[in-house]
Amino acid sequence: MRAYQLPESGAGIEALARVDLPQPKPQYRQVLVKVGACSLNFRDLGIVRGTYRMPVRDKVVPLSDGAGEVVEIGAGVSRVKVGDKVAGNFFQRWTGGEPSQNVQASALGGSIDGMLAEYAVLEEDGVVKIPAHLSIEEGATLPCAALTAWHAMVRHAGLIAGQTVLLQGTGGVSIFGLQFAHAMGVSAIVTSSSDDKLKRARSLGASHAINYKTTPDWEKSAVEFTGGRGVDHVVEVGGQGTLAKSFGAIRIGGKISMIGGLSGAATELNPSLILARRANVQGISVGSTEMFEAMNGAISANQIKPVIDKVFSFDEAQAAYKHMASGTHFGKIVIRV
Amino acid sequence: MRAYQLPESGAGIEALARVDLPQPKPQYRQVLVKVGACSLNFRDLGIVRGTYRMPVRDKVVPLSDGAGEVVEIGAGVSRVKVGDKVAGNFFQRWTGGEPSQNVQASALGGSIDGMLAEYAVLEEDGVVKIPAHLSIEEGATLPCAALTAWHAMVRHAGLIAGQTVLLQGTGGVSIFGLQFAHAMGVSAIVTSSSDDKLKRARSLGASHAINYKTTPDWEKSAVEFTGGRGVDHVVEVGGQGTLAKSFGAIRIGGKISMIGGLSGAATELNPSLILARRANVQGISVGSTEMFEAMNGAISANQIKPVIDKVFSFDEAQAAYKHMASGTHFGKIVIRV
Amino acid sequence: MRAYQLPESGAGIEALARVDLPQPKPQYRQVLVKVGACSLNFRDLGIVRGTYRMPVRDKVVPLSDGAGEVVEIGAGVSRVKVGDKVAGNFFQRWTGGEPSQNVQASALGGSIDGMLAEYAVLEEDGVVKIPAHLSIEEGATLPCAALTAWHAMVRHAGLIAGQTVLLQGTGGVSIFGLQFAHAMGVSAIVTSSSDDKLKRARSLGASHAINYKTTPDWEKSAVEFTGGRGVDHVVEVGGQGTLAKSFGAIRIGGKISMIGGLSGAATELNPSLILARRANVQGISVGSTEMFEAMNGAISANQIKPVIDKVFSFDEAQAAYKHMASGTHFGKIVIRV
Amino acid sequence: MRAYQLPESGAGIEALARVDLPQPKPQYRQVLVKVGACSLNFRDLGIVRGTYRMPVRDKVVPLSDGAGEVVEIGAGVSRVKVGDKVAGNFFQRWTGGEPSQNVQASALGGSIDGMLAEYAVLEEDGVVKIPAHLSIEEGATLPCAALTAWHAMVRHAGLIAGQTVLLQGTGGVSIFGLQFAHAMGVSAIVTSSSDDKLKRARSLGASHAINYKTTPDWEKSAVEFTGGRGVDHVVEVGGQGTLAKSFGAIRIGGKISMIGGLSGAATELNPSLILARRANVQGISVGSTEMFEAMNGAISANQIKPVIDKVFSFDEAQAAYKHMASGTHFGKIVIRV
Repeated sequence: MRAYQLPESGAGIEALARVDLPQPKPQYRQVLVKVGACSLNFRDLGIVRGTYRMPVRDKVVPLSDGAGEVVEIGAGVSRVKVGDKVAGNFFQRWTGGEPSQNVQASALGGSIDGMLAEYAVLEEDGVVKIPAHLSIEEGATLPCAALTAWHAMVRHAGLIAGQTVLLQGTGGVSIFGLQFAHAMGVSAIVTSSSDDKLKRARSLGASHAINYKTTPDWEKSAVEFTGGRGVDHVVEVGGQGTLAKSFGAIRIGGKISMIGGLSGAATELNPSLILARRANVQGISVGSTEMFEAMNGAISANQIKPVIDKVFSFDEAQAAYKHMASGTHFGKIVIRV
Repeated sequence: MRAYQLPESGAGIEALARVDLPQPKPQYRQVLVKVGACSLNFRDLGIVRGTYRMPVRDKVVPLSDGAGEVVEIGAGVSRVKVGDKVAGNFFQRWTGGEPSQNVQASALGGSIDGMLAEYAVLEEDGVVKIPAHLSIEEGATLPCAALTAWHAMVRHAGLIAGQTVLLQGTGGVSIFGLQFAHAMGVSAIVTSSSDDKLKRARSLGASHAINYKTTPDWEKSAVEFTGGRGVDHVVEVGGQGTLAKSFGAIRIGGKISMIGGLSGAATELNPSLILARRANVQGISVGSTEMFEAMNGAISANQIKPVIDKVFSFDEAQAAYKHMASGTHFGKIVIRV
Repeated sequence: MRAYQLPESGAGIEALARVDLPQPKPQYRQVLVKVGACSLNFRDLGIVRGTYRMPVRDKVVPLSDGAGEVVEIGAGVSRVKVGDKVAGNFFQRWTGGEPSQNVQASALGGSIDGMLAEYAVLEEDGVVKIPAHLSIEEGATLPCAALTAWHAMVRHAGLIAGQTVLLQGTGGVSIFGLQFAHAMGVSAIVTSSSDDKLKRARSLGASHAINYKTTPDWEKSAVEFTGGRGVDHVVEVGGQGTLAKSFGAIRIGGKISMIGGLSGAATELNPSLILARRANVQGISVGSTEMFEAMNGAISANQIKPVIDKVFSFDEAQAAYKHMASGTHFGKIVIRV
Repeated sequence: MRAYQLPESGAGIEALARVDLPQPKPQYRQVLVKVGACSLNFRDLGIVRGTYRMPVRDKVVPLSDGAGEVVEIGAGVSRVKVGDKVAGNFFQRWTGGEPSQNVQASALGGSIDGMLAEYAVLEEDGVVKIPAHLSIEEGATLPCAALTAWHAMVRHAGLIAGQTVLLQGTGGVSIFGLQFAHAMGVSAIVTSSSDDKLKRARSLGASHAINYKTTPDWEKSAVEFTGGRGVDHVVEVGGQGTLAKSFGAIRIGGKISMIGGLSGAATELNPSLILARRANVQGISVGSTEMFEAMNGAISANQIKPVIDKVFSFDEAQAAYKHMASGTHFGKIVIRV
């Protein structure tokens, strides 16, 4: 079958190679998926650049995010059947509850082969049906960015209608977060350096939009929006320079979800900020199949459509990576397989 | 000051008497509210009819639900100031956390004097500011019915976007529940014996509407709507004959909030139903001031407008009770003070 | 390999037949366990008597509870290794989080073959290591009764030190519940019709022991023990006649876990009791592998030793069932394989 | 009445002055307490030294921790009666649920007058009955240190039997934490620079004791104790130099409760540690009256006796402060009033 491989972590975009691999066979409680589309995350860029800190196997088939059709099922499979449209869960072995200590060993496109191939074998507990109103391309955007936002907002912060979340920038996690907030009756504040992107964020339901270039003290603008109380939750994806401001933005008892940093070097955090705000800070790394199913329920019931920036062909995989590296996109970058 | 009194529980609507009472004075951490409007709940009808099982003091000033303006504050008050528009919390001494064992002793319009008077003295921790976009009449509808629905759906069931709630009938609790569900991205199923009321429920955001007269097996229709899985939550207000059907409607692991019965006699419940569905059943009685504030946040952020059926003048209080007794209303019945 | 089979549900104890079955092979992410011991639960008696309401396959190898040594692992297994002493989880496919809708289809000794055999193939996510201080016989007592008590007390009731739980009788669930309560700093009230059994319960740490024969109003004695407040939690295993009393025993806001009934006919429940106590009632059916691991942590850290009533040989399996049917035991009945 | 006053924050121990103040009167829902004993916390030392960052009123009556007998009640009081032995809650206006935004304004011995006086007027919702088996001196040790440990371990970490907590040093919070862990079936690891103090910690139930002077890599010793998995929870009181090690000690998904720092300067925290461990970090500041009552339930049921280092007379208040400053104590320092 057709596939891409990365010789080793950090080999660079140009090293992504088209290869021909044997078609895998599903074993007991596994399914064979004919991949229709994949999507990219910053993590994938980190893997080709060598800045991703988690283990990456050599000759990995890249990309965690992909969707397709179940074309064969192994013995004992009961959750899905041939013909179902499914997406794979980022962690193939995180079904529900707390992650096991070695969950990282089952990360698609990192510690195990990912989705940028014609076929993929996945655990039956590692796939979810994609919402019926979504195309395969749209379904392929959900596994990493959307589930990370869902985990942060619904599981960690337990946001309820009427609360306020602050979302940094307009990357995949923040845009999905914005759409979820809108569906949940939660007010969303979005920051960006681009007025154009902020305008688009408003059209997706942002209650307040702050240009952090023209308003460097964006945390004060956020507090002001809440009538002086502070926001309930920040999805912290910003890395350098944002963390102290995030603490300035939250209310007493507010929550900060820390998502895998986009910027290379981590910033320093003054722990007295945690104490002063009686804050709750949680490190988040994607989520379980159970969370994915709950999220898909929300996407279906609210007819949420993922925002796709551009769709590339299978041959244009390197171009897709380069487009992500440019940072000019708004929404997800998809590769049709 | 002008007020109404009920000589004793069960004295009947005609016994509701206009009286002149001394204007109360706020003590330490109390506030004096000039009442602008009150609203009615089935509980108030139960009190005049003598079917309400909780203690009611003699010569009680009736009605738990009322809103008005703070006109004087006692010593030590910090939560509100003169001029604030507030509603009283049903339980004056349930601030937050779990209710104390004797919380029932602080129920407005039952164990203590209520709101159907020109002035009321309330605990500072027993009032909440009403959402800015609401009139005093609208604010007066919130304390009992809306908070009961909020407690059931947000605190007990912990409903998240994408889940499904079943709401029985179109009384105050169910209509507020419908509006909250709509704001929260939760799918609402509403039942009624009136196609006209179901039509109005649809216009308020109901995803599925069932006429239980023409569809006596409404629980099957509800399960079908969820694709065979069953609903996540039922707000059980129906009383006789609905409970077994509610268990038929929920999914494995579903939740049922039991609200103070509208019908006099309680039905029998086969406890094996709880076991078979691994259900979670919770008795609910209004909520805390803390919940009220959270609910008002949701009402504000989502610009929810309470549905008011009819507004009566202070002189027409008995007529307001009779209108509620007729059961023809859709939405809240208000008395302007 | 040697094994027992039950021709069909309800065939009776005498129908339990010694058979010779082919030794099973572990597939992908499965393990082969050489069974050392099994233990019995009332559910197993229900299956041979035909009173168990869940589906039972014909020619089932009976018993959910068993422990042994991993002697072979299938491909992809990472949670355990050859040589590990493990017990199987009642539900082979309930790993963590909420149970899936079809979890019942993976119940050992019911919908799938159980442990009363020389070897058993189990899912790698369906086994847990037994605490190091326990023998195989002791480890075999944990899957059903202990996990049910743990689920009820720790997950449902969320009991914390200083609260009070009421445990009915001295069956497996209640005795484990008593040992857990003692370890957790939770006060346990135990009821029984036998002063001798109550004495043994006291020696295991019961704070209060009530003979329900001589004190038919045992719920009043329980409330009195709590200084008039009521107990926080009842693990309801009693069936007929106990449920109304359990509501009489709990505090406002108390919790009742309903466990699979021992008595055939379910009692009727007046739902107004749920409302009056603002009670929370949850149907419980064993638990997940994740809960099992947490429970084993508690058993290890507190050096809890399961109470074993009597150990039978593999040949005496029918005698073991008859001993359980006699109801004279205190603690678990074990069959050595 | 006799009392002490501190002229202003930072005035120093020698400035603590014996004064004669008018006896206060309880207003509506307040109680008058005849103080029997007080106890000291590091926070009190911070106030006299001027290193406490929260607001302190001038001429404050110091000390948050005190217990005594109710000698008079204001109108409307229902929670306690004359003759009850009670302790005051640190935050007089944090009854239950989440703290209000201005809870800090009700901190005894800081923003409002504290307990180092013959009499104190407290809110009825700001007092709790002390456990019956405790003396007034012992009851006076509970409000700040014990409740902080309880909040961290029971509310934030939700520790359950079988889990492991790491407690730093042998100050008040850690010693109470150790006693709670022991009662809850939770394994406690204690660190100290004194083998003698570690020996005493073992006698109070510590499962593992580490001298951080002789074992500077104490986090590795902690991980080893848990079989390589990491501890579930750290109560972080250590300040400089301990935080990074605490992250090294916790398991994936572990929790760190940050308690008000003992050391002046806060350390820097590399936020990538939070992400790498998927840790949950919570800033903790004492707790609510509701938590205090739950804690007292645990203390009573488990007959926990606070460890008192030394009791001073009212005249020796300055000596008590100096003893705390010496750091040689093990357990609480008490002043009899």
